[in-house]
Amino acid sequence: MNRCYLDWNATAPLRPEARAAMIEAAEITGNPSSVHAEGRAAKSALERAREDIATALGAEGADVIFTSGATEAAALVLAGRDLSCAPVEHAAVLAWCQDSLAVDAGGQVAVADPARSCLQLANSETGVIQDLPQGLAVSDLTQAFGKVPFAFNWLGIEAGFVSAHKLGGPRGTGALIVRRGTAIEARIRGGGQEQGRRAGTENLIGIMGFAAAAKAAQNDLDQGMAEKLTETRDSLMAALESGAGMVTFPGRDSRRLPNTLSILTPGWRGETQVMQMDLAGFAVSAGSACSSGKVRPSTVLTAMGIAAGQAGDAIRVSIGPATDPRDVARFADAWLAAHDRWRQRNEGRETAGKV
Amino acid sequence: MNRCYLDWNATAPLRPEARAAMIEAAEITGNPSSVHAEGRAAKSALERAREDIATALGAEGADVIFTSGATEAAALVLAGRDLSCAPVEHAAVLAWCQDSLAVDAGGQVAVADPARSCLQLANSETGVIQDLPQGLAVSDLTQAFGKVPFAFNWLGIEAGFVSAHKLGGPRGTGALIVRRGTAIEARIRGGGQEQGRRAGTENLIGIMGFAAAAKAAQNDLDQGMAEKLTETRDSLMAALESGAGMVTFPGRDSRRLPNTLSILTPGWRGETQVMQMDLAGFAVSAGSACSSGKVRPSTVLTAMGIAAGQAGDAIRVSIGPATDPRDVARFADAWLAAHDRWRQRNEGRETAGKV
Repeated sequence: MNRCYLDWNATAPLRPEARAAMIEAAEITGNPSSVHAEGRAAKSALERAREDIATALGAEGADVIFTSGATEAAALVLAGRDLSCAPVEHAAVLAWCQDSLAVDAGGQVAVADPARSCLQLANSETGVIQDLPQGLAVSDLTQAFGKVPFAFNWLGIEAGFVSAHKLGGPRGTGALIVRRGTAIEARIRGGGQEQGRRAGTENLIGIMGFAAAAKAAQNDLDQGMAEKLTETRDSLMAALESGAGMVTFPGRDSRRLPNTLSILTPGWRGETQVMQMDLAGFAVSAGSACSSGKVRPSTVLTAMGIAAGQAGDAIRVSIGPATDPRDVARFADAWLAAHDRWRQRNEGRETAGKV
Repeated sequence: MNRCYLDWNATAPLRPEARAAMIEAAEITGNPSSVHAEGRAAKSALERAREDIATALGAEGADVIFTSGATEAAALVLAGRDLSCAPVEHAAVLAWCQDSLAVDAGGQVAVADPARSCLQLANSETGVIQDLPQGLAVSDLTQAFGKVPFAFNWLGIEAGFVSAHKLGGPRGTGALIVRRGTAIEARIRGGGQEQGRRAGTENLIGIMGFAAAAKAAQNDLDQGMAEKLTETRDSLMAALESGAGMVTFPGRDSRRLPNTLSILTPGWRGETQVMQMDLAGFAVSAGSACSSGKVRPSTVLTAMGIAAGQAGDAIRVSIGPATDPRDVARFADAWLAAHDRWRQRNEGRETAGKV
């Protein structure tokens, strides 16, 4: 069956540029900590990748600390600090913060004390983009990086973190970005790698893939990718809206990521929709991917004032540079057909109930 | 210049089997936590890799928890426990343990309380293999895995950890192995991955490379690789010994890894030797690779009773399955020629001093 992958916010397909860089990296034998020629070549490749990522992030002059992903980077910068956050944050942030900040119906978070708060730049489920307050302690830049233009150095934040696999790099690589010289106590210890902030031999293949993907994503943005994705996403929204009466799109009136659409159909369970679409050849998700393989009601949506009973009735469609708009149109047709079958069954039950 | 890489204990060249598995893995789009077909395919590949690694480790039925490397795995199992260890351990272990255990001249460690101790199976610098006591809390299996046959399930230990890149897998992937169901508190949190013990989207490309490398290394061992490497290593030792009077080989009388030779020449600095050999086309190391690019006197050798002033006069040669014995013979020639030059300069200085 011809599959159509519309779950780029869970993980993006590996970009060809990343694949090529990783194959090149595989030829670089040598531990970046070794002093011989092979070690120096590995070190040099590592530092070039670091510079490329800093450039793509607009973080020139800041410190880029490589980690095994955004989740590790979040732990590195958040553990033990007890910062405030909102319930719209990813579980990797919620694990270390107090989720006490208020969220409005559009998904915007009110930050009281920026220096003691963590706030994402963009939400993975709704795509809602936050206006980050100056002096913010930490921002989760994971979903925004590569999808909308921004510069770390212009955000006015102390620290941010990103992941490779959300923008077409490999899973298992990420980075913490901090202003140069910020004190960070290593949680993984025993070598002086990453300026003493993160020990362990560096994942050179993954990091080189990350750098190539970040460059390619930046290039896409320069070429108008955000506008192209917005158009495709908005066409999908219009098609669903015209064909399904009760559907809503949480966050639609907020500034959003161009690739993300949250689709809420009261009464039609998100997991049911995901399974039906999966059988029809489309990969979408209900809420964030969560490790248990189960789907929990989205705290992102309940925080925006959607009733708990309805927050489980949403799915997320997220697309990317390689998405063919015709596939998205096919998805709209398939979803609307499933929606009609669901509505008919529903009406049948209601009619039966009246008899 | 035709380079010869003799620093496999720092990092091994990527095995062709690992490279092929990683290229295959790059085609698997999908987050292993996603419920759709792409997610299930990723999850299935992940679990196959876990089984392959368990099999290669003789750890069937144990829990294999994937990490970003041995250093992270060490932190995961050691942090906050204040176990005892010996100064011969890797920095990733020393960071979390008390180095109070005694080491004899052959490199053997005396463990008083196994349940409260961490002991490596093999040393990275000398190759010395330990007899692990029954009931040992934790063992660093990193340097032994793939080089000598052993089975986790027969070692009688509670937990062990390994790294992919020491046996021909990629840098940035490793695992903690524990008896099934052992309580491990996650240090990287926010997702339920790895049975709640290690959050974050899994490094599928790295993990599939790790599994393929582990299988290949196991296959090599079955085919007599250890014997082949021992022969090459012992030929090198014999050549150096016959050509250089004062050279010694720390740990030579102990059971050792077949691929490792520690070479001590009193008065000839290890870093000088490494640089001279590097210029001659050979990659070897002085002590462990350390992140600063500098070389510290080896605590491994001082723990074995070698004077601090001499512990910096050692280099390590470590070979692997792809090493051509003729290259090792070329290294012996180059090293002996450099040794003669050093000795002549030294004698010149001594003669001059006497005048």
